[in-house]
Amino acid sequence: MIASSKVEGTAVYNRQGEKLGEVYNFMVGKRSGRVAYAVMSFGGFLGIGQKYHAVPWDTLTYDKGKGGYVIDANRDRLMGAPSYGAGEDPFSQPGYGRHVEDYWAAGMI
Amino acid sequence: MIASSKVEGTAVYNRQGEKLGEVYNFMVGKRSGRVAYAVMSFGGFLGIGQKYHAVPWDTLTYDKGKGGYVIDANRDRLMGAPSYGAGEDPFSQPGYGRHVEDYWAAGMI
Repeated sequence: MIASSKVEGTAVYNRQGEKLGEVYNFMVGKRSGRVAYAVMSFGGFLGIGQKYHAVPWDTLTYDKGKGGYVIDANRDRLMGAPSYGAGEDPFSQPGYGRHVEDYWAAGMI
Repeated sequence: MIASSKVEGTAVYNRQGEKLGEVYNFMVGKRSGRVAYAVMSFGGFLGIGQKYHAVPWDTLTYDKGKGGYVIDANRDRLMGAPSYGAGEDPFSQPGYGRHVEDYWAAGMI
């Protein structure tokens, strides 16, 4: 069991141990009570302001040693992934979740 | 879909429309990705400082009109429910979730 407020703000690393960003928040199905997507935020390092990437929740694995999540994706893959800016609410559009799923499912092949 | 950060801070009412408190955060199964418990906080009105009650997630129903969750429990039932104070982390103890489940399951009879 982990508290929602502890997930938020937790660092996200790639397999090489580089910190990519952090978990900004996560999306929960209202009826299902299932965590569907983690929303990662990237601050300065990409040099393009605050950006948010929703990734399927099971794309992240918690690494106790690192004290953060690990995502099996390099920066290019992440850079090409669906993203949005501050103040946008893409999940209010039907089909956005599917769009995210499709991008990440294709990467798993 | 709702963002975790929007759930946190949302008001909780009883069936009579009285505001009981708000959702402080919620507990997610690390492996299952399932929201298991909402943690409600009560501020001043009980006169006993900040108190937290974990309730099974499906005890709460979202009411669009009220803009908050509704819990089918009166104050006595809630007052008697398992609770803890600030700085305590009862979910680190095995069996705490079961303790909470048992209390609320009994109430449903």
